Amino acid sequence: MEKVSEYIQEHKDRFIHELIELLKIPSISADSKYKGDVLAAAEAVRKTLESAGADNTELCETEGFPVVYGEKIIDASKPTILVYGHYDVQPADPLELWDSPPFEPIIKDDKIYARGACDDKGQMYMHVKAFELMMNTKQLPCNVKFIIEGEEEVGSENLEAFIQSNKEKLKADIILISDTSMLSMEHPSITTGLKGLSYLEVEVTGPNRDLHSGVYGGAVANPINILCEMIASLKDENNRITIPGFYDNILEASTEERALMSKTPFNLEDYKGKLGIEEVHGKKGYTTIERKGIRPTLDVNGIWGGYIGEGAKTVLPSKASAKISMRLVPNQSDEEITQKFKNHFESIAPKSVKVEVKPHHGGEPYVMPIDIPEYKAASEAIVKAFGKEPVPVRAGGSIPIVALFEQVLGLKSILLGFGLDSDAIHSPNEHYGIENFLKGIETISYFYESYSNSYD
Amino acid sequence: MEKVSEYIQEHKDRFIHELIELLKIPSISADSKYKGDVLAAAEAVRKTLESAGADNTELCETEGFPVVYGEKIIDASKPTILVYGHYDVQPADPLELWDSPPFEPIIKDDKIYARGACDDKGQMYMHVKAFELMMNTKQLPCNVKFIIEGEEEVGSENLEAFIQSNKEKLKADIILISDTSMLSMEHPSITTGLKGLSYLEVEVTGPNRDLHSGVYGGAVANPINILCEMIASLKDENNRITIPGFYDNILEASTEERALMSKTPFNLEDYKGKLGIEEVHGKKGYTTIERKGIRPTLDVNGIWGGYIGEGAKTVLPSKASAKISMRLVPNQSDEEITQKFKNHFESIAPKSVKVEVKPHHGGEPYVMPIDIPEYKAASEAIVKAFGKEPVPVRAGGSIPIVALFEQVLGLKSILLGFGLDSDAIHSPNEHYGIENFLKGIETISYFYESYSNSYD
Repeated sequence: MEKVSEYIQEHKDRFIHELIELLKIPSISADSKYKGDVLAAAEAVRKTLESAGADNTELCETEGFPVVYGEKIIDASKPTILVYGHYDVQPADPLELWDSPPFEPIIKDDKIYARGACDDKGQMYMHVKAFELMMNTKQLPCNVKFIIEGEEEVGSENLEAFIQSNKEKLKADIILISDTSMLSMEHPSITTGLKGLSYLEVEVTGPNRDLHSGVYGGAVANPINILCEMIASLKDENNRITIPGFYDNILEASTEERALMSKTPFNLEDYKGKLGIEEVHGKKGYTTIERKGIRPTLDVNGIWGGYIGEGAKTVLPSKASAKISMRLVPNQSDEEITQKFKNHFESIAPKSVKVEVKPHHGGEPYVMPIDIPEYKAASEAIVKAFGKEPVPVRAGGSIPIVALFEQVLGLKSILLGFGLDSDAIHSPNEHYGIENFLKGIETISYFYESYSNSYD
Repeated sequence: MEKVSEYIQEHKDRFIHELIELLKIPSISADSKYKGDVLAAAEAVRKTLESAGADNTELCETEGFPVVYGEKIIDASKPTILVYGHYDVQPADPLELWDSPPFEPIIKDDKIYARGACDDKGQMYMHVKAFELMMNTKQLPCNVKFIIEGEEEVGSENLEAFIQSNKEKLKADIILISDTSMLSMEHPSITTGLKGLSYLEVEVTGPNRDLHSGVYGGAVANPINILCEMIASLKDENNRITIPGFYDNILEASTEERALMSKTPFNLEDYKGKLGIEEVHGKKGYTTIERKGIRPTLDVNGIWGGYIGEGAKTVLPSKASAKISMRLVPNQSDEEITQKFKNHFESIAPKSVKVEVKPHHGGEPYVMPIDIPEYKAASEAIVKAFGKEPVPVRAGGSIPIVALFEQVLGLKSILLGFGLDSDAIHSPNEHYGIENFLKGIETISYFYESYSNSYD
């Protein structure tokens, strides 16, 4: 594997140049105006896979934008890595907050600035280039398949149908994804968990019309007061969620993982300072990192009711509503928790009001155990590229496709991200460090080897 | 006093005709387009007072619309009644919901339909006509003063200054006002109390910007959850308000008054049916009528925070806000309760958030004891006109000028209203029953006598 860093040194300018060309295509999947550009990006990705040495490259039709496919099967008895990424990007507005046009990439301070630079064109392209490297240096030790979709930023709506109907084609041993971040270049990390999500909307109805709060106040239930009381009762004084059965079956993080997590570089004073808060807040008995990563949470995401204009209006409103979401950890299931919430919320409503609970959408949690060979192979690749062991990080966010892959294909995903939280993805001035890009290519190349070795 | 009903019978057509002429003037104080009409109404009222026999009638200048003044001093040693009313009216929109134009009064089913028919031109005019009756039948037993203002519907902003600078001129023994309603023609009532008001806005700030609820949820205080918990804690399980000192000094209603109140005709099933609720809700140990009338209340009038659009957004917002008002009973004071709320609300905020409490506006409560001669005189007049004893009613609403009169002039007000809750004041198709109008004139005439007798 000595040729890896040499190859990268030799070809890095071309790698960057090619990525910049791809970033020039405004492949905004959310805006139908850009339909042609999204399709052009798909074709560009197909071509680049082909040039890198992939066989059977094609644009697989879906109800929406195509999934780009490519593969290299060197030996059916060898393990197969399935790489997932996406070629579509977020809208670029507000445009006026960009220092340079989002689809005219520039390099500044060793970072590439453009929409999609990190999410996910830059990270996805690392895989194409690592594959090219392995092919051109004749080191590819296993089979590879690529699926690069064009609808990740609009909810991957057609991906499930694609996977369901291509189970044979997508047969693999592990999924490799670079669409997350790592702690820092000094503290490389691997995302070992994603939370699931149960998102609901609740509506509390009191009287059948808005009333005068002087004439009816104190005698008729005020749906805002009641909603507040119901929401408050969802947590006890230790911030434990009170929904019956909420914590049933939770797969607790192992002592080893908690010990590793506790080594995550984290400065509480700095964290509080950046958020402008005096104290953190959460479930008793857990650190901030654990609260974020391994504990399920319940947050009100929106609340409204009554008069919300300027000044004062003495109304006792008919209705009050809230959007409430719960982040789930392994082995909670979206459907089960949604039902438990609904049952509980309806049961605690006083007779003086009516309550409606409407589930919005959800997703299942995901966890990658750190004691399986795939994780150890990824860890080894990081050690080789960065010179230090990665920190396993359980993320608070949700990427529903990862749970989907597990459900439909029965495969674990390795979330090997090289972005930084400061990369401004989904925001103006998105960028991606050139060092991150090149280290990513290097790490992925090493992973091919460590993974194949672990499989033997 | 035999001549009272005879005089009314003889002149009632003219009374109605005169009122209709006054109702034709669109004296909408809130809309500057109608400024000339408001002034025309003031002059019309002055003239009608003059015709009825009042001396020294004038339009007293204020910073806004004038106060119409008139008086009849028959004997400085006799008691003086100060009549208050207003000649301005609410805007008439939405115009399309009126069955006949708001300023083209018509009589239908023995009711006069027009904006201001009840509130307050019709009720105010009963006083002018009762005074005329007493003058023309040479029975006026006491002195009378009138102040009819033109800014009641826009908050009586200039009335305090007027009263403050005319204390001598307005010297009297009792104030008489017809700007409230009674239970029904079968159940005449006297409004014996009005609630005070403390209205505040609260803002809870967590992190200094909106955060991703996946990344920060469970580790950083969510201001919506916290606001809900704080609001919920303002009442205990018996709906007792938990603000320290909130119930201090309250002047409890007497056993006699509670006994009389319990005779108020009230059908709980009907009340619940009309509001579409299964259960009423309020402080333990009190009836619905008591909760409305004699107990202080706390209602959230508006709440907002986070994402309130369609669909789902996983935001942990920076801020959450609410408008909260408390209705006060005698002897709670607006200023004191506002301060107690502020102190308490700030004290219960966890360290993980910042809280701001902004007082909006308020008003003092008012009560008319039912054991004083003035009340008994009003009760006697009702008995004479209606053949039955009135029910004392504590209203849940607030009329700040009544507390103002007590504060500045040291005078109690008798709230002798003849409107019905069904009169649609402030709404399309406002109307006033002709029988109510005539019974009002009769009752007021009797009051002159009973009041003068009680004073001897």
